[in-house]
Amino acid sequence: MNGAESLLRTLVHSDVDVCFMNPGTSEMQFVAAADKEPGMRCVLGLFEGVVSGAADGYARMAGKPAATLLHLGPGLANALANFHNALRANTPIVNIVGDHATYHKKYDAPLASDVAAYALPVSGWIKEVEDAKDVPTITQEAVKASLQPPGQVATLIVPADCAWSESNEAATSKIERPRAALVDETAVESAAMGLRSGEPAVILLRGRALSAEGLEWASRIANKTKVRVFCDTFTSRIERGAGRATVERLPYFPELIVDTLAGTKHLIIVGSKPPVGFFAYPDKPSWLTPDDCQIHTLATPEQDGIDALSRLAEALSATSTEVSYTSLNKFEMPQGQLSLETIGMTVAALLPENVIVAEEAITSGFPLLPMTANSPPHDWLMVPGGAIGGGLPMATGAAVACPDRKVLSLQADGSAMYTLQALWTQAREGLNVTTVIYANREYKILNIEFDRVGAGEQGKVAHDMFSLDQPALDWVKLAGGMGVPAKRITSLEDFGKTLAAYLKEPGPNLIELVL
Amino acid sequence: MNGAESLLRTLVHSDVDVCFMNPGTSEMQFVAAADKEPGMRCVLGLFEGVVSGAADGYARMAGKPAATLLHLGPGLANALANFHNALRANTPIVNIVGDHATYHKKYDAPLASDVAAYALPVSGWIKEVEDAKDVPTITQEAVKASLQPPGQVATLIVPADCAWSESNEAATSKIERPRAALVDETAVESAAMGLRSGEPAVILLRGRALSAEGLEWASRIANKTKVRVFCDTFTSRIERGAGRATVERLPYFPELIVDTLAGTKHLIIVGSKPPVGFFAYPDKPSWLTPDDCQIHTLATPEQDGIDALSRLAEALSATSTEVSYTSLNKFEMPQGQLSLETIGMTVAALLPENVIVAEEAITSGFPLLPMTANSPPHDWLMVPGGAIGGGLPMATGAAVACPDRKVLSLQADGSAMYTLQALWTQAREGLNVTTVIYANREYKILNIEFDRVGAGEQGKVAHDMFSLDQPALDWVKLAGGMGVPAKRITSLEDFGKTLAAYLKEPGPNLIELVL
Repeated sequence: MNGAESLLRTLVHSDVDVCFMNPGTSEMQFVAAADKEPGMRCVLGLFEGVVSGAADGYARMAGKPAATLLHLGPGLANALANFHNALRANTPIVNIVGDHATYHKKYDAPLASDVAAYALPVSGWIKEVEDAKDVPTITQEAVKASLQPPGQVATLIVPADCAWSESNEAATSKIERPRAALVDETAVESAAMGLRSGEPAVILLRGRALSAEGLEWASRIANKTKVRVFCDTFTSRIERGAGRATVERLPYFPELIVDTLAGTKHLIIVGSKPPVGFFAYPDKPSWLTPDDCQIHTLATPEQDGIDALSRLAEALSATSTEVSYTSLNKFEMPQGQLSLETIGMTVAALLPENVIVAEEAITSGFPLLPMTANSPPHDWLMVPGGAIGGGLPMATGAAVACPDRKVLSLQADGSAMYTLQALWTQAREGLNVTTVIYANREYKILNIEFDRVGAGEQGKVAHDMFSLDQPALDWVKLAGGMGVPAKRITSLEDFGKTLAAYLKEPGPNLIELVL
Repeated sequence: MNGAESLLRTLVHSDVDVCFMNPGTSEMQFVAAADKEPGMRCVLGLFEGVVSGAADGYARMAGKPAATLLHLGPGLANALANFHNALRANTPIVNIVGDHATYHKKYDAPLASDVAAYALPVSGWIKEVEDAKDVPTITQEAVKASLQPPGQVATLIVPADCAWSESNEAATSKIERPRAALVDETAVESAAMGLRSGEPAVILLRGRALSAEGLEWASRIANKTKVRVFCDTFTSRIERGAGRATVERLPYFPELIVDTLAGTKHLIIVGSKPPVGFFAYPDKPSWLTPDDCQIHTLATPEQDGIDALSRLAEALSATSTEVSYTSLNKFEMPQGQLSLETIGMTVAALLPENVIVAEEAITSGFPLLPMTANSPPHDWLMVPGGAIGGGLPMATGAAVACPDRKVLSLQADGSAMYTLQALWTQAREGLNVTTVIYANREYKILNIEFDRVGAGEQGKVAHDMFSLDQPALDWVKLAGGMGVPAKRITSLEDFGKTLAAYLKEPGPNLIELVL
């Protein structure tokens, strides 16, 4: 058994059974190995940003890592932006990167590079195989490293000769999934003290605490102590909608977060950090928590936030307190003109039960979350790292993880262009993804940010750098070029009809919504 | 004058007057500054790989660097693969990357990262501005660093507050372009001795030595000493065609290079290194020069290869030796079926004088270079770093550099997908680029390499990972979706007619050649 075969089999035995890939010459043995190991599902991306973003979306929904297979330093480079998003989402990913054969490296061939240096900014764990015999051991290490709470990108570099040389048999022992550490009682006590004080307090959640279970505990605590529960502006996944406990979202702009937290004396943090400005702006604060607010870190991202919340509830005698479950309250289909508001109402009215919403709608997305609060239960995925181009791949990976669920991919046109190749993978794999492109034909966020950073009057250059209308992108053609059926929509009525129909159809489809 | 204004004006005074960009919030002041500085041409790319690849193609043709403007670590990450190609092409680029405001970094906002770490694998020079006042000085340093022979990517990191804070006036002093060092006389003597020996010898050229002037000197030497002149398999630019001195190209596969160099006793190297395998293969050599061959490094990439060649010619009394100029010998338009050979003949028959060929046709490209050897004089650009997706952006940048020349972009369908967003920039800027997509609907090179690395029989997974036909990409739609007129061609006759017409039309257009 060669190194590649041992690696693939070890992965499958370690319950890593999906590999998103864009392989090259140095990874041919892995492709051959996959043909001998039917337990591994191989999904091709035509660009590496699709591969890394899909692995991110997959793990968020599957609750376990996918593998990625990439070609040398430049192939890894193309995947880095979405690995940055995975880093900020605390997503476990087993990232396999091929490299030149060990003995070939000294020749500095055209594609040679320091692969580990490329991996460094996004990886919590990096190791390079030096001997094919070590493959099974190191592969298990990599899987375990990826699962290290709260989850991280573990990069395993495999020189070509370590893939084609004789290795040891695959490791078949079950991997003990590392458990998140329980918080100290002092953390629970501190939070309880803050909440018992009767002073204004806020609970801020992130990560696993935004699961249905975590939200229930937070809701009990909030109802007992009369405080508000928030999640970060961008989070990896929220279980929300009717029948789930409510959570508010922190706003995007820093001055709005300052307003939201004004007067707060106790900030109870679970799996997150005190909120800071997404960007700095002249004359606006970066640090957004009031100066006289006490910060109680109930659980760090590495710790078990749900256990911590349950113990906090116990400390506050809130274990039997009622949970504020969201009621089902569907919007009626709106009438009138296309606007962000009527589009949001339409999405809310049509949102099917159990749908996975993958959202990177940027400025167009702001109204969506509040409007869908009372829709049937669903999952909501965002791009917590802010690296543009996370959305389409994330939707793709989520659909691979959950073949029986529909994915609704809500996208801005500007951000969709970074990783549009994801549509081809959706067509290739027949994934149940309905994409809605909010085509405002500009980088609207930059139009807003230009003013906010005090850059002055916009001239022709600024206009040209922010507009996407010269020429306008034609998303019906772009999607069609990759095998995804698509329609251009210019009226609210057509949007409602088409979205309703598309959500019922199997396979991918796309709506270009001209704003 | 704020830091961004000072930076932009310093660039323009330093003769860097084109900026390829994909800016974000932290770069808004640069956009505003560009509106006040009409000397800077700003070109938007909808993905950062387009930005870096276009800057590479631009500098190769303009003979001076462009600037790139990128947004934080992830924006830079998306540009890295084509910066790797620039690194291997020794292309000067002034790479400006915005970062969070200095005081904002400690808050570890979602998009925060170690920007310098991202830049490290591809940059020959990296500096971060710490005080807006230093901007003009450091900007001049960056330009000078980029021009350090043979040319490199110089990365200048500018925190947002250094862009918006008051700076010193722009630097207006002319930048003394660093000159390549002249080689020692011993290097000339060593090469001359080898060539005088009468033993079989080969001259291997790269970089500036492949200019018309360098090739003439090499031809004189070759004619005097009866040796062959080669260029590397992949080079940044060759001035070739009728009226230029001939040069042969080293083959791609290592065993063919071994055959080519068999019996060679003296390898005279100008601006290159001894050839090595692009990849390692089991049981095939990485080092391709015969063991008993003496290697004479006449000039390193950092040194002045043209001067070295002229001095070698002098040492060999070859300064008045005749140059073997290529004769003009156009192919007749071929008849018959579409094949790589007839396509190559058609391209050769129609190649207009002074055209710039930007080629990333991978397996489909092998016949092209020999067939166009006797076409009218032209420039040929390749992707020396081997990072896939260099071609379309390279063509885009070359067209910006040379608005009065036609660019013929010869592309494989698989590689074109990595950076297809370049087509939009071609449409936006009205660039004179005719793209031919060789649509074999597979990663054909991987089909070949799979066998060569001894990966065994191909099964279904291998087939699926190498094929692009399920669904087939529709390049007419993809191009149309970005505003580039396109035609699908399935017969040789139509190809000839359409290519002839497209090469005469202004603006971009695209031919999907179904193989």
